[in-house]
Amino acid sequence: MKILAVDLGGTHATCALVEGRRILVRQTLALPGSPSLAATLEAIASSLEELHAGSPAQGIGFGFCGLVDSRRTRIASTNGKYTDAVDLDLAGWARERFGLPLRLENDARLALLGECFAGAAQGETDVVMFTLGTGIGGVAMIGGRLLRGKHDQAGVLGGHIPVNFAGRRCTCGAVGCAESEASGWSLPLVTRAWPGFASSALAARNIDFQNLFACATAGDAVSREIVDHCLRVWGAAAVAAVHSFDPELLVYGGGVMQRADLILPFLQDYLNAHAWTPWGKVRVRAAQLGNDAALLGAVPLFDQELPLVR
Amino acid sequence: MKILAVDLGGTHATCALVEGRRILVRQTLALPGSPSLAATLEAIASSLEELHAGSPAQGIGFGFCGLVDSRRTRIASTNGKYTDAVDLDLAGWARERFGLPLRLENDARLALLGECFAGAAQGETDVVMFTLGTGIGGVAMIGGRLLRGKHDQAGVLGGHIPVNFAGRRCTCGAVGCAESEASGWSLPLVTRAWPGFASSALAARNIDFQNLFACATAGDAVSREIVDHCLRVWGAAAVAAVHSFDPELLVYGGGVMQRADLILPFLQDYLNAHAWTPWGKVRVRAAQLGNDAALLGAVPLFDQELPLVR
Repeated sequence: MKILAVDLGGTHATCALVEGRRILVRQTLALPGSPSLAATLEAIASSLEELHAGSPAQGIGFGFCGLVDSRRTRIASTNGKYTDAVDLDLAGWARERFGLPLRLENDARLALLGECFAGAAQGETDVVMFTLGTGIGGVAMIGGRLLRGKHDQAGVLGGHIPVNFAGRRCTCGAVGCAESEASGWSLPLVTRAWPGFASSALAARNIDFQNLFACATAGDAVSREIVDHCLRVWGAAAVAAVHSFDPELLVYGGGVMQRADLILPFLQDYLNAHAWTPWGKVRVRAAQLGNDAALLGAVPLFDQELPLVR
Repeated sequence: MKILAVDLGGTHATCALVEGRRILVRQTLALPGSPSLAATLEAIASSLEELHAGSPAQGIGFGFCGLVDSRRTRIASTNGKYTDAVDLDLAGWARERFGLPLRLENDARLALLGECFAGAAQGETDVVMFTLGTGIGGVAMIGGRLLRGKHDQAGVLGGHIPVNFAGRRCTCGAVGCAESEASGWSLPLVTRAWPGFASSALAARNIDFQNLFACATAGDAVSREIVDHCLRVWGAAAVAAVHSFDPELLVYGGGVMQRADLILPFLQDYLNAHAWTPWGKVRVRAAQLGNDAALLGAVPLFDQELPLVR
């Protein structure tokens, strides 16, 4: 079975044709500041038409960077991006434009499906996947099924569990989420407010995780403190996920994981010390598929997940 | 169907005979500092024999104050209390002593089952119940079923989700749990470390929530700050539960809820302001059954929950 896969992020979309565990062909579209999903869909449709014409597919798996009601195939909330998305009928669009069924899923959930299907979580049934990037994704699978809940919001907001009740307000509305304490977008805010920042090595650089880790490795004291802050935030989020969802494995992906050598041992030690798991020890592992995860996740989305509502 | 119900806490046990939504008769046993479950079981057995002799029951529903593997009818971890409990075969004990099947459940989970069966959550399918007392219980039901997970630990540790990653170490091993930041046992620790405590009205009193609320109401500034601290801790725990489990209703029980008049409006406002729930607003409600909840929960534990493993 061939599937057309779409992974739509805030700044780019990737369209691909997937068969089994292989991505046959892909196209990446830059979306510089595109505010409207309706407009973006045109570019996506052109790409899909090209992929589809060469090698007909049997469905479209669509990953979206926001809250998704996958049972009703609707986008529920967009947290600032593509605010017109909640009014769009993507299933109708796919039917009319391609004559194909479409399944919609949150992009982080799709990535976990992909890692379970073809990556770091193959054979696992109880997993939480964190994506440490511009934001923080956190997705739970229990007993081989994505946790969904009444409004499809359970187990998909692992980056928006408060780990600092007196902390920074998050874009989601909550206070002190892992994402608002230690993610790509919040790092500059955290860093500029850090005592001693102005005289730190970091002050002369663009503030991102790459530079933060580089300055810390070079011995900058403030950078080391902030790295330690971020690690402890991610550690608390990991404990929250373990205590909430009872997984045996945590998988970590996202751009920040370029320093997996530093992050994974810390998280494994942190969980060994602080997670209440009388049955044994939760394992921690790096994601294997990078940006391919969400594309490959489109296959189990059709094979194994929800019955299709037409 | 009549059920024998046991609710075993750290300092007392209640045994009861329950039929439908009625508690026919109950006996409460004081357990002053009893360290062993084996010894405690003798007292429980005497009470149950008395209840059973007068009016034969069809099973024993046993609520325990620790982590429980209800599918295997074993106690998984006790967090300091009844450390011999993990080695005991309660199902065997019930079979030999009474000729009855026994089902075992965590006491906070049983209380939620009870509130769903006969109390504040009747007719609800997606609920989280918090118990604010000496510790903090936090239990999730999704789609009408208790959330369990691989090792029966999912959805039962709502008081042990870190809300302060730089906070106080909890008895569970984690850092900054809601329970270690604002519960009966941690309140004295939090209070004595508070700036200005020594000169506050609270310093002359036994430190518990009743006195804390009384001093705050009387205008003591430090007490007001600590009340505010506790409310925000509970608010963060509420958001964590909503973002993890996607409930429509939060039910609050436990001794601290004597000040429900102050706590519930705060939590409702907090969730309205900070929970990311595009589908609508999560409701907040007081538990109705008090200590009866876990006893009444023994009925649905037999009727609706797990298949019985003998």
